[in-house]
Amino acid sequence: MILWLGEGLVEAAEARIDPADRGLTLGDGLFETVRVSGGRPLRFADHLRRLHRGAALLGLPVPLSDAALGDAAEAVLRANGLAGGLVDAVLRITLTRGVGARGIAVPDPCRPTLAITAAARPPAPGPALIIGAGSTRRNDRSPLSRIKSLNYLDNILARQEADRAGADDAVLLNTRDRVACATVATLFAVVDGALVTPPEDDGALPGIRRGELLAEGAETRPLSVADLRRATEIFLTNCLSVRPVIILDGSPVGDGRPGPTAAGLLEDAR
Amino acid sequence: MILWLGEGLVEAAEARIDPADRGLTLGDGLFETVRVSGGRPLRFADHLRRLHRGAALLGLPVPLSDAALGDAAEAVLRANGLAGGLVDAVLRITLTRGVGARGIAVPDPCRPTLAITAAARPPAPGPALIIGAGSTRRNDRSPLSRIKSLNYLDNILARQEADRAGADDAVLLNTRDRVACATVATLFAVVDGALVTPPEDDGALPGIRRGELLAEGAETRPLSVADLRRATEIFLTNCLSVRPVIILDGSPVGDGRPGPTAAGLLEDAR
Repeated sequence: MILWLGEGLVEAAEARIDPADRGLTLGDGLFETVRVSGGRPLRFADHLRRLHRGAALLGLPVPLSDAALGDAAEAVLRANGLAGGLVDAVLRITLTRGVGARGIAVPDPCRPTLAITAAARPPAPGPALIIGAGSTRRNDRSPLSRIKSLNYLDNILARQEADRAGADDAVLLNTRDRVACATVATLFAVVDGALVTPPEDDGALPGIRRGELLAEGAETRPLSVADLRRATEIFLTNCLSVRPVIILDGSPVGDGRPGPTAAGLLEDAR
Repeated sequence: MILWLGEGLVEAAEARIDPADRGLTLGDGLFETVRVSGGRPLRFADHLRRLHRGAALLGLPVPLSDAALGDAAEAVLRANGLAGGLVDAVLRITLTRGVGARGIAVPDPCRPTLAITAAARPPAPGPALIIGAGSTRRNDRSPLSRIKSLNYLDNILARQEADRAGADDAVLLNTRDRVACATVATLFAVVDGALVTPPEDDGALPGIRRGELLAEGAETRPLSVADLRRATEIFLTNCLSVRPVIILDGSPVGDGRPGPTAAGLLEDAR
Protein backbone atom coordinates (compact mmCIF):
# COMPACT_ATOMS: atom_id res chain seq x y z
CA MET A 1 0.00 0.00 0.00
CA ILE A 2 1.19 3.48 -0.85
CA LEU A 3 -0.14 6.58 0.86
CA TRP A 4 0.26 10.32 0.68
CA LEU A 5 1.97 11.59 3.81
CA GLY A 6 2.95 15.20 4.18
CA GLU A 7 4.29 16.20 0.82
CA GLY A 8 4.39 13.07 -1.27
CA LEU A 9 3.82 9.37 -1.77
CA VAL A 10 5.32 6.92 0.70
CA GLU A 11 5.28 3.14 0.97
CA ALA A 12 3.09 2.25 3.98
CA ALA A 13 5.90 0.15 5.46
CA GLU A 14 8.09 3.26 5.52
CA ALA A 15 5.48 5.82 6.55
CA ARG A 16 6.35 7.33 9.91
CA ILE A 17 3.82 9.03 12.15
CA ASP A 18 5.60 10.81 14.96
CA PRO A 19 4.55 9.40 18.36
CA ALA A 20 4.11 13.06 19.43
CA ASP A 21 1.57 13.75 16.68
CA ARG A 22 -1.49 15.24 18.37
CA GLY A 23 -3.72 13.15 16.14
CA LEU A 24 -2.44 10.18 18.11
CA THR A 25 -1.93 11.70 21.55
CA LEU A 26 -5.16 13.73 21.74
CA GLY A 27 -7.35 12.81 18.77
CA ASP A 28 -6.67 16.35 17.56
CA GLY A 29 -7.78 16.23 13.96
CA LEU A 30 -10.43 15.18 11.48
CA PHE A 31 -10.96 13.10 8.38
CA GLU A 32 -13.09 12.48 5.32
CA THR A 33 -14.04 9.21 3.68
CA VAL A 34 -14.69 9.56 -0.05
CA ARG A 35 -16.15 7.00 -2.41
CA VAL A 36 -14.29 6.55 -5.67
CA SER A 37 -16.12 5.23 -8.71
CA GLY A 38 -14.52 4.60 -12.08
CA GLY A 39 -11.35 6.22 -10.78
CA ARG A 40 -13.07 9.48 -9.78
CA PRO A 41 -13.74 10.63 -6.21
CA LEU A 42 -17.49 11.27 -5.93
CA ARG A 43 -18.78 14.55 -4.48
CA PHE A 44 -15.18 15.53 -3.82
CA ALA A 45 -16.00 19.24 -3.62
CA ASP A 46 -18.63 18.53 -0.94
CA HIS A 47 -16.16 16.48 1.07
CA LEU A 48 -13.54 19.21 0.85
CA ARG A 49 -16.11 21.80 1.91
CA ARG A 50 -16.89 19.75 5.02
CA LEU A 51 -13.18 19.24 5.66
CA HIS A 52 -12.67 23.00 5.57
CA ARG A 53 -15.62 23.60 7.91
CA GLY A 54 -14.21 21.11 10.42
CA ALA A 55 -10.70 22.53 10.11
CA ALA A 56 -12.06 26.03 10.71
CA LEU A 57 -13.81 24.86 13.89
CA LEU A 58 -10.58 23.33 15.16
CA GLY A 59 -8.44 26.25 14.02
CA LEU A 60 -6.48 23.89 11.83
CA PRO A 61 -4.87 25.07 8.58
CA VAL A 62 -5.40 22.83 5.53
CA PRO A 63 -1.88 22.52 4.12
CA LEU A 64 -2.82 21.96 0.46
CA SER A 65 -5.14 23.79 -1.91
CA ASP A 66 -8.24 21.91 -3.02
CA ALA A 67 -6.64 21.36 -6.43
CA ALA A 68 -3.49 19.96 -4.83
CA LEU A 69 -5.63 17.72 -2.57
CA GLY A 70 -7.33 16.41 -5.70
CA ASP A 71 -3.97 15.74 -7.35
CA ALA A 72 -2.68 13.99 -4.22
CA ALA A 73 -5.80 11.82 -4.03
CA GLU A 74 -5.42 10.88 -7.69
CA ALA A 75 -1.75 10.04 -7.16
CA VAL A 76 -2.66 7.71 -4.27
CA LEU A 77 -5.33 5.98 -6.36
CA ARG A 78 -2.94 5.53 -9.29
CA ALA A 79 -0.11 4.27 -7.08
CA ASN A 80 -2.40 1.60 -5.63
CA GLY A 81 -3.91 0.48 -8.93
CA LEU A 82 -7.27 1.98 -7.95
CA ALA A 83 -7.56 4.62 -10.68
CA GLY A 84 -9.00 2.30 -13.33
CA GLY A 85 -12.42 2.89 -14.83
CA LEU A 86 -13.87 -0.34 -13.49
CA VAL A 87 -12.60 -0.08 -9.93
CA ASP A 88 -14.65 1.01 -6.96
CA ALA A 89 -12.50 2.37 -4.17
CA VAL A 90 -12.54 4.49 -1.05
CA LEU A 91 -10.22 7.34 -0.09
CA ARG A 92 -9.55 8.56 3.41
CA ILE A 93 -8.10 12.03 3.99
CA THR A 94 -6.82 12.52 7.54
CA LEU A 95 -5.68 15.89 8.85
CA THR A 96 -4.16 16.30 12.32
CA ARG A 97 -2.62 19.24 14.16
CA GLY A 98 0.77 17.58 13.81
CA VAL A 99 3.48 17.26 16.42
CA GLY A 100 2.98 19.04 19.71
CA ALA A 101 4.76 19.32 23.03
CA ARG A 102 3.39 17.63 26.17
CA GLY A 103 -0.02 18.91 27.30
CA ILE A 104 -2.97 20.26 25.33
CA ALA A 105 -1.83 23.86 24.76
CA VAL A 106 -2.33 24.34 21.03
CA PRO A 107 0.90 24.92 19.08
CA ASP A 108 0.73 28.16 17.11
CA PRO A 109 1.70 28.01 14.34
CA CYS A 110 1.21 24.29 13.87
CA ARG A 111 2.49 22.00 11.15
CA PRO A 112 -0.49 19.79 10.36
CA THR A 113 -0.10 16.18 9.31
CA LEU A 114 -1.93 15.21 6.13
CA ALA A 115 -2.38 11.56 5.19
CA ILE A 116 -4.35 10.18 2.26
CA THR A 117 -4.95 6.46 1.97
CA ALA A 118 -6.94 4.39 -0.50
CA ALA A 119 -8.46 0.94 -0.41
CA ALA A 120 -10.76 -1.18 -2.53
CA ARG A 121 -14.37 -0.39 -1.74
CA PRO A 122 -15.81 -2.94 0.66
CA PRO A 123 -18.70 -5.06 -0.64
CA ALA A 124 -22.16 -3.53 -0.15
CA PRO A 125 -23.44 -4.55 3.29
CA GLY A 126 -26.59 -6.64 3.51
CA PRO A 127 -29.78 -5.73 5.40
CA ALA A 128 -29.00 -4.85 9.00
CA LEU A 129 -30.10 -5.89 12.46
CA ILE A 130 -29.57 -2.92 14.75
CA ILE A 131 -30.00 -2.11 18.42
CA GLY A 132 -30.45 1.07 20.39
CA ALA A 133 -27.12 1.73 22.12
CA GLY A 134 -27.35 1.80 25.91
CA SER A 135 -23.61 2.09 26.53
CA THR A 136 -23.17 5.77 25.65
CA ARG A 137 -24.76 8.90 24.22
CA ARG A 138 -23.76 11.19 21.38
CA ASN A 139 -22.82 14.65 22.58
CA ASP A 140 -25.25 16.90 20.69
CA ARG A 141 -24.07 19.76 22.92
CA SER A 142 -20.61 19.67 21.33
CA PRO A 143 -19.91 21.19 17.90
CA LEU A 144 -17.74 18.11 17.30
CA SER A 145 -20.94 16.16 16.61
CA ARG A 146 -21.23 18.22 13.41
CA ILE A 147 -17.72 17.51 12.08
CA LYS A 148 -15.92 14.31 11.21
CA SER A 149 -13.38 14.48 14.00
CA LEU A 150 -10.93 11.78 15.04
CA ASN A 151 -12.80 11.32 18.34
CA TYR A 152 -14.67 8.12 17.51
CA LEU A 153 -14.68 6.31 20.83
CA ASP A 154 -18.38 6.80 21.61
CA ASN A 155 -19.17 5.27 18.23
CA ILE A 156 -16.72 2.43 18.92
CA LEU A 157 -18.38 1.70 22.30
CA ALA A 158 -21.76 1.54 20.57
CA ARG A 159 -20.40 -0.71 17.84
CA GLN A 160 -18.89 -3.06 20.43
CA GLU A 161 -22.27 -3.19 22.15
CA ALA A 162 -23.86 -4.14 18.81
CA ASP A 163 -21.21 -6.84 18.32
CA ARG A 164 -21.95 -8.30 21.74
CA ALA A 165 -25.68 -8.32 20.95
CA GLY A 166 -25.10 -10.08 17.63
CA ALA A 167 -26.32 -6.98 15.77
CA ASP A 168 -24.75 -5.19 12.81
CA ASP A 169 -24.93 -1.64 14.06
CA ALA A 170 -26.29 0.54 16.85
CA VAL A 171 -28.36 3.72 17.01
CA LEU A 172 -26.83 6.41 19.19
CA LEU A 173 -29.19 8.59 21.17
CA ASN A 174 -28.16 12.10 22.14
CA THR A 175 -28.12 13.55 25.65
CA ARG A 176 -31.82 14.46 25.36
CA ASP A 177 -33.00 10.94 24.47
CA ARG A 178 -33.37 11.70 20.80
CA VAL A 179 -32.02 9.67 17.92
CA ALA A 180 -28.73 11.03 16.53
CA CYS A 181 -27.21 8.52 14.10
CA ALA A 182 -25.76 5.03 13.68
CA THR A 183 -22.09 4.35 14.42
CA VAL A 184 -20.80 5.24 10.94
CA ALA A 185 -23.94 6.28 9.12
CA THR A 186 -26.85 8.67 8.95
CA LEU A 187 -30.18 7.18 9.98
CA PHE A 188 -33.24 7.70 7.80
CA ALA A 189 -36.73 6.54 8.72
CA VAL A 190 -40.14 6.63 7.12
CA VAL A 191 -42.49 7.90 9.85
CA ASP A 192 -46.13 8.84 9.16
CA GLY A 193 -45.33 8.48 5.48
CA ALA A 194 -42.51 11.04 5.53
CA LEU A 195 -38.82 10.31 4.92
CA VAL A 196 -37.07 11.89 7.91
CA THR A 197 -33.62 12.10 9.50
CA PRO A 198 -32.41 13.75 12.73
CA PRO A 199 -31.41 17.44 12.54
CA GLU A 200 -27.83 18.55 13.14
CA ASP A 201 -28.93 20.07 16.45
CA ASP A 202 -29.69 16.56 17.63
CA GLY A 203 -26.13 15.45 16.94
CA ALA A 204 -26.40 14.33 13.33
CA LEU A 205 -23.25 14.69 11.24
CA PRO A 206 -24.07 16.61 8.05
CA GLY A 207 -23.36 13.63 5.81
CA ILE A 208 -22.86 14.18 2.10
CA ARG A 209 -25.40 11.50 1.14
CA ARG A 210 -27.75 12.91 3.78
CA GLY A 211 -27.49 16.32 2.12
CA GLU A 212 -28.43 14.82 -1.23
CA LEU A 213 -31.52 13.13 0.19
CA LEU A 214 -32.56 16.32 1.98
CA ALA A 215 -32.22 18.18 -1.32
CA GLU A 216 -34.44 15.54 -2.91
CA GLY A 217 -37.26 16.02 -0.40
CA ALA A 218 -36.38 14.20 2.81
CA GLU A 219 -36.94 16.26 5.97
CA THR A 220 -35.08 16.75 9.21
CA ARG A 221 -37.20 15.94 12.25
CA PRO A 222 -36.36 15.18 15.87
CA LEU A 223 -36.89 11.46 16.38
CA SER A 224 -37.62 9.58 19.57
CA VAL A 225 -37.12 5.88 20.11
CA ALA A 226 -40.92 5.55 19.91
CA ASP A 227 -40.83 7.19 16.48
CA LEU A 228 -38.29 4.60 15.34
CA ARG A 229 -40.43 1.77 16.71
CA ARG A 230 -43.36 2.80 14.57
CA ALA A 231 -41.31 3.63 11.48
CA THR A 232 -42.40 1.63 8.44
CA GLU A 233 -38.87 1.74 7.04
CA ILE A 234 -35.39 2.48 8.39
CA PHE A 235 -32.14 2.64 6.48
CA LEU A 236 -28.58 3.82 7.03
CA THR A 237 -26.54 5.88 4.60
CA ASN A 238 -22.98 7.02 4.30
CA CYS A 239 -20.94 7.87 1.25
CA LEU A 240 -20.19 4.19 0.68
CA SER A 241 -23.57 2.52 1.02
CA VAL A 242 -27.31 2.50 1.59
CA ARG A 243 -28.18 -0.20 4.11
CA PRO A 244 -31.75 -1.24 4.86
CA VAL A 245 -32.55 -2.03 8.49
CA ILE A 246 -34.85 -5.00 8.93
CA ILE A 247 -34.69 -5.59 12.69
CA LEU A 248 -34.56 -2.98 15.48
CA ASP A 249 -33.99 -4.31 19.00
CA GLY A 250 -35.29 -7.73 17.98
CA SER A 251 -38.51 -6.54 16.31
CA PRO A 252 -39.09 -6.31 12.58
CA VAL A 253 -39.06 -2.88 10.95
CA GLY A 254 -42.17 -2.64 8.75
CA ASP A 255 -42.72 -6.12 7.34
CA GLY A 256 -39.15 -7.14 8.24
CA ARG A 257 -37.87 -6.83 4.70
CA PRO A 258 -35.83 -4.04 3.04
CA GLY A 259 -38.20 -1.12 2.40
CA PRO A 260 -39.03 0.48 -0.94
CA THR A 261 -37.16 3.77 -0.35
CA ALA A 262 -33.85 2.04 0.35
CA ALA A 263 -34.51 -0.38 -2.51
CA GLY A 264 -35.06 2.57 -4.85
CA LEU A 265 -31.81 4.20 -3.77
CA LEU A 266 -29.94 0.94 -4.23
CA GLU A 267 -31.50 0.54 -7.66
CA ASP A 268 -30.43 4.10 -8.61
CA ALA A 269 -26.89 3.32 -7.54
CA ARG A 270 -26.53 0.45 -10.00
CA MET B 1 14.45 11.67 23.31
CA ILE B 2 14.05 7.94 23.77
CA LEU B 3 10.71 6.25 24.26
CA TRP B 4 9.32 2.82 24.90
CA LEU B 5 7.40 1.61 21.89
CA GLY B 6 5.96 -1.86 21.72
CA GLU B 7 8.60 -4.09 23.21
CA GLY B 8 11.60 -1.90 23.85
CA LEU B 9 13.38 1.46 23.80
CA VAL B 10 13.53 3.41 20.55
CA GLU B 11 15.06 6.73 19.56
CA ALA B 12 12.18 9.14 18.93
CA ALA B 13 13.56 9.97 15.49
CA GLU B 14 13.24 6.31 14.56
CA ALA B 15 9.95 5.54 16.29
CA ARG B 16 7.31 4.57 13.78
CA ILE B 17 3.60 4.76 14.45
CA ASP B 18 1.70 3.02 11.70
CA PRO B 19 -0.62 5.45 9.87
CA ALA B 20 -3.31 2.75 10.25
CA ASP B 21 -3.01 2.74 14.06
CA ARG B 22 -6.52 3.22 15.43
CA GLY B 23 -5.13 5.57 18.07
CA LEU B 24 -4.48 7.96 15.19
CA THR B 25 -7.37 7.16 12.87
CA LEU B 26 -10.15 6.95 15.47
CA GLY B 27 -8.76 8.14 18.82
CA ASP B 28 -9.18 4.51 19.91
CA GLY B 29 -7.13 4.33 23.09
CA LEU B 30 -6.26 5.93 26.40
CA PHE B 31 -3.36 7.29 28.39
CA GLU B 32 -2.00 8.14 31.82
CA THR B 33 0.17 11.04 32.88
CA VAL B 34 2.32 10.25 35.92
CA ARG B 35 4.44 12.60 37.96
CA VAL B 36 7.95 11.43 38.72
CA SER B 37 9.76 12.76 41.75
CA GLY B 38 13.29 11.82 42.73
CA GLY B 39 13.30 9.25 39.95
CA ARG B 40 10.17 7.48 41.23
CA PRO B 41 6.74 7.54 39.56
CA LEU B 42 4.25 8.78 42.19
CA ARG B 43 1.03 6.88 42.87
CA PHE B 44 2.01 4.52 40.08
CA ALA B 45 -0.30 1.75 41.32
CA ASP B 46 -3.27 4.17 41.26
CA HIS B 47 -2.44 5.23 37.71
CA LEU B 48 -2.19 1.60 36.58
CA ARG B 49 -5.50 0.80 38.26
CA ARG B 50 -7.16 3.61 36.30
CA LEU B 51 -5.43 2.46 33.10
CA HIS B 52 -6.85 -1.03 33.64
CA ARG B 53 -10.35 0.33 34.30
CA GLY B 54 -10.23 2.36 31.08
CA ALA B 55 -8.82 -0.55 29.10
CA ALA B 56 -11.60 -2.81 30.42
CA LEU B 57 -14.24 -0.29 29.31
CA LEU B 58 -12.73 -0.20 25.82
CA GLY B 59 -12.15 -3.97 25.70
CA LEU B 60 -8.45 -3.32 25.23
CA PRO B 61 -5.84 -5.78 26.51
CA VAL B 62 -2.91 -4.27 28.43
CA PRO B 63 0.08 -5.94 26.79
CA LEU B 64 2.46 -5.81 29.78
CA SER B 65 2.09 -6.83 33.41
CA ASP B 66 2.12 -4.02 35.97
CA ALA B 67 5.64 -5.01 36.97
CA ALA B 68 6.80 -4.92 33.36
CA LEU B 69 5.12 -1.52 32.88
CA GLY B 70 7.06 -0.28 35.89
CA ASP B 71 10.31 -1.62 34.45
CA ALA B 72 9.56 -0.05 31.08
CA ALA B 73 8.79 3.32 32.70
CA GLU B 74 12.03 3.14 34.65
CA ALA B 75 13.98 2.30 31.51
CA VAL B 76 12.52 5.34 29.74
CA LEU B 77 13.40 7.61 32.66
CA ARG B 78 16.96 6.27 32.80
CA ALA B 79 17.47 6.50 29.04
CA ASN B 80 16.46 10.17 29.12
CA GLY B 81 18.55 11.13 32.15
CA LEU B 82 15.39 11.60 34.24
CA ALA B 83 15.93 8.89 36.82
CA GLY B 84 18.14 10.94 39.11
CA GLY B 85 17.16 11.70 42.69
CA LEU B 86 16.93 15.46 42.12
CA VAL B 87 14.95 15.41 38.91
CA ASP B 88 11.23 16.09 38.61
CA ALA B 89 9.75 14.52 35.52
CA VAL B 90 6.52 13.38 33.93
CA LEU B 91 5.72 10.08 32.26
CA ARG B 92 3.03 9.46 29.71
CA ILE B 93 1.76 5.94 29.04
CA THR B 94 -0.32 5.70 25.86
CA LEU B 95 -2.23 2.55 24.91
CA THR B 96 -4.09 2.24 21.62
CA ARG B 97 -5.95 -0.60 19.92
CA GLY B 98 -3.15 -0.80 17.36
CA VAL B 99 -3.42 -1.22 13.62
CA GLY B 100 -6.87 -1.80 12.17
CA ALA B 101 -8.44 -2.17 8.76
CA ARG B 102 -10.60 0.59 7.28
CA GLY B 103 -13.79 1.33 9.23
CA ILE B 104 -14.57 1.12 12.93
CA ALA B 105 -15.24 -2.63 13.28
CA VAL B 106 -13.06 -3.62 16.23
CA PRO B 107 -10.23 -6.03 15.33
CA ASP B 108 -10.42 -9.18 17.46
CA PRO B 109 -7.88 -10.09 18.60
CA CYS B 110 -6.09 -6.76 18.46
CA ARG B 111 -2.39 -5.99 18.85
CA PRO B 112 -2.38 -2.87 21.05
CA THR B 113 0.26 -0.18 20.69
CA LEU B 114 2.00 0.80 23.91
CA ALA B 115 4.13 3.95 24.06
CA ILE B 116 5.82 5.41 27.13
CA THR B 117 7.44 8.83 26.94
CA ALA B 118 9.12 11.00 29.56
CA ALA B 119 9.85 14.68 29.83
CA ALA B 120 11.13 17.12 32.42
CA ARG B 121 8.30 18.28 34.65
CA PRO B 122 7.02 21.67 33.52
CA PRO B 123 7.40 24.55 36.00
CA ALA B 124 4.52 24.93 38.44
CA PRO B 125 1.86 27.15 36.85
CA GLY B 126 1.02 30.45 38.49
CA PRO B 127 -2.42 31.55 39.72
CA ALA B 128 -4.99 31.20 36.95
CA LEU B 129 -7.56 33.34 35.21
CA ILE B 130 -10.28 31.05 33.97
CA ILE B 131 -13.49 31.34 31.99
CA GLY B 132 -16.61 29.25 31.68
CA ALA B 133 -16.41 27.53 28.30
CA GLY B 134 -19.26 28.38 25.95
CA SER B 135 -17.87 26.54 22.94
CA THR B 136 -18.71 23.00 24.00
CA ARG B 137 -19.98 20.72 26.75
CA ARG B 138 -18.50 17.69 28.42
CA ASN B 139 -20.45 14.53 27.71
CA ASP B 140 -21.42 13.32 31.19
CA ARG B 141 -23.72 10.80 29.49
CA SER B 142 -20.72 8.92 28.06
CA PRO B 143 -18.62 6.55 30.18
CA LEU B 144 -15.63 8.06 28.36
CA SER B 145 -15.89 11.06 30.68
CA ARG B 146 -14.73 8.75 33.47
CA ILE B 147 -11.62 7.45 31.70
CA LYS B 148 -8.56 9.18 30.30
CA SER B 149 -9.30 8.44 26.67
CA LEU B 150 -7.49 9.85 23.64
CA ASN B 151 -10.63 11.83 22.69
CA TYR B 152 -9.54 15.27 23.88
CA LEU B 153 -11.07 17.55 21.27
CA ASP B 154 -13.79 19.00 23.50
CA ASN B 155 -11.09 19.96 25.98
CA ILE B 156 -8.99 21.42 23.18
CA LEU B 157 -11.92 23.53 21.95
CA ALA B 158 -12.40 24.87 25.47
CA ARG B 159 -8.67 25.58 25.84
CA GLN B 160 -8.65 27.47 22.53
CA GLU B 161 -11.60 29.52 23.77
CA ALA B 162 -9.61 30.33 26.92
CA ASP B 163 -6.61 31.32 24.76
CA ARG B 164 -8.76 33.67 22.69
CA ALA B 165 -10.15 35.24 25.88
CA GLY B 166 -6.66 35.75 27.30
CA ALA B 167 -7.41 33.25 30.07
CA ASP B 168 -5.30 30.34 31.31
CA ASP B 169 -7.94 27.67 31.37
CA ALA B 170 -11.66 27.01 30.97
CA VAL B 171 -14.32 25.27 33.01
CA LEU B 172 -16.32 22.74 31.05
CA LEU B 173 -19.99 22.38 31.89
CA ASN B 174 -21.76 19.11 31.27
CA THR B 175 -24.92 18.61 29.22
CA ARG B 176 -27.08 19.46 32.24
CA ASP B 177 -25.44 22.85 32.91
CA ARG B 178 -23.36 21.56 35.80
CA VAL B 179 -19.65 22.07 36.31
CA ALA B 180 -17.58 19.06 35.18
CA CYS B 181 -13.87 19.99 35.18
CA ALA B 182 -11.18 22.22 33.67
CA THR B 183 -9.46 21.26 30.41
CA VAL B 184 -6.71 19.15 32.00
CA ALA B 185 -7.57 19.31 35.69
CA THR B 186 -10.09 18.56 38.39
CA LEU B 187 -11.88 21.62 39.75
CA PHE B 188 -12.17 22.12 43.51
CA ALA B 189 -14.13 24.94 45.12
CA VAL B 190 -14.84 26.10 48.65
CA VAL B 191 -18.60 26.68 48.79
CA ASP B 192 -20.45 27.38 52.03
CA GLY B 193 -17.24 26.55 53.84
CA ALA B 194 -16.97 23.04 52.34
CA LEU B 195 -14.27 21.84 49.97
CA VAL B 196 -16.21 20.32 47.07
CA THR B 197 -15.62 18.87 43.60
CA PRO B 198 -18.05 17.61 40.94
CA PRO B 199 -19.10 13.94 41.14
CA GLU B 200 -18.16 11.45 38.42
CA ASP B 201 -21.82 11.37 37.33
CA ASP B 202 -21.43 15.00 36.33
CA GLY B 203 -18.54 14.16 33.99
CA ALA B 204 -15.58 14.46 36.36
CA LEU B 205 -12.61 12.23 35.59
CA PRO B 206 -11.65 10.26 38.72
CA GLY B 207 -8.30 12.02 39.06
CA ILE B 208 -5.63 10.52 41.30
CA ARG B 209 -5.05 13.79 43.18
CA ARG B 210 -8.84 14.23 43.38
CA GLY B 211 -9.09 10.82 45.03
CA GLU B 212 -6.50 11.82 47.61
CA LEU B 213 -8.36 15.02 48.51
CA LEU B 214 -11.66 13.14 48.76
CA ALA B 215 -9.99 10.68 51.13
CA GLU B 216 -8.79 13.63 53.20
CA GLY B 217 -12.30 15.08 53.64
CA ALA B 218 -13.29 16.92 50.45
CA GLU B 219 -16.78 16.09 49.21
CA THR B 220 -18.35 15.51 45.82
CA ARG B 221 -21.26 17.84 45.15
CA PRO B 222 -23.05 18.90 41.96
CA LEU B 223 -21.96 22.46 41.20
CA SER B 224 -23.76 25.10 39.19
CA VAL B 225 -22.14 28.16 37.66
CA ALA B 226 -23.86 30.17 40.43
CA ASP B 227 -22.11 27.97 43.02
CA LEU B 228 -18.77 28.75 41.41
CA ARG B 229 -19.53 32.48 41.40
CA ARG B 230 -20.05 32.49 45.15
CA ALA B 231 -17.15 30.15 45.92
CA THR B 232 -14.62 31.72 48.30
CA GLU B 233 -11.83 29.69 46.73
CA ILE B 234 -11.31 27.72 43.52
CA PHE B 235 -8.30 25.67 42.50
CA LEU B 236 -7.37 23.13 39.86
CA THR B 237 -5.52 19.88 40.46
CA ASN B 238 -3.96 17.19 38.38
CA CYS B 239 -1.10 14.87 39.13
CA LEU B 240 1.41 17.56 38.17
CA SER B 241 0.16 20.63 40.00
CA VAL B 242 -2.22 22.50 42.28
CA ARG B 243 -3.20 25.77 40.64
CA PRO B 244 -5.15 28.47 42.47
CA VAL B 245 -7.79 30.30 40.44
CA ILE B 246 -7.95 34.03 41.16
CA ILE B 247 -10.25 35.27 38.41
CA LEU B 248 -13.39 33.58 37.03
CA ASP B 249 -14.98 35.22 33.98
CA GLY B 250 -13.36 38.55 34.83
CA SER B 251 -14.41 38.64 38.48
CA PRO B 252 -12.16 37.90 41.46
CA VAL B 253 -12.59 34.60 43.27
CA GLY B 254 -12.75 35.36 47.02
CA ASP B 255 -10.42 38.29 47.58
CA GLY B 256 -8.72 37.70 44.21
CA ARG B 257 -5.66 36.07 45.74
CA PRO B 258 -4.70 32.39 46.00
CA GLY B 259 -6.83 30.84 48.72
CA PRO B 260 -5.65 29.11 51.89
CA THR B 261 -6.59 25.56 50.88
CA ALA B 262 -4.55 25.66 47.68
CA ALA B 263 -1.73 27.42 49.53
CA GLY B 264 -1.72 24.63 52.12
CA LEU B 265 -1.56 21.95 49.43
CA LEU B 266 1.28 23.77 47.70
CA GLU B 267 3.09 24.08 51.02
CA ASP B 268 2.66 20.33 51.65
CA ALA B 269 4.12 19.58 48.25
CA ARG B 270 7.41 21.35 48.99
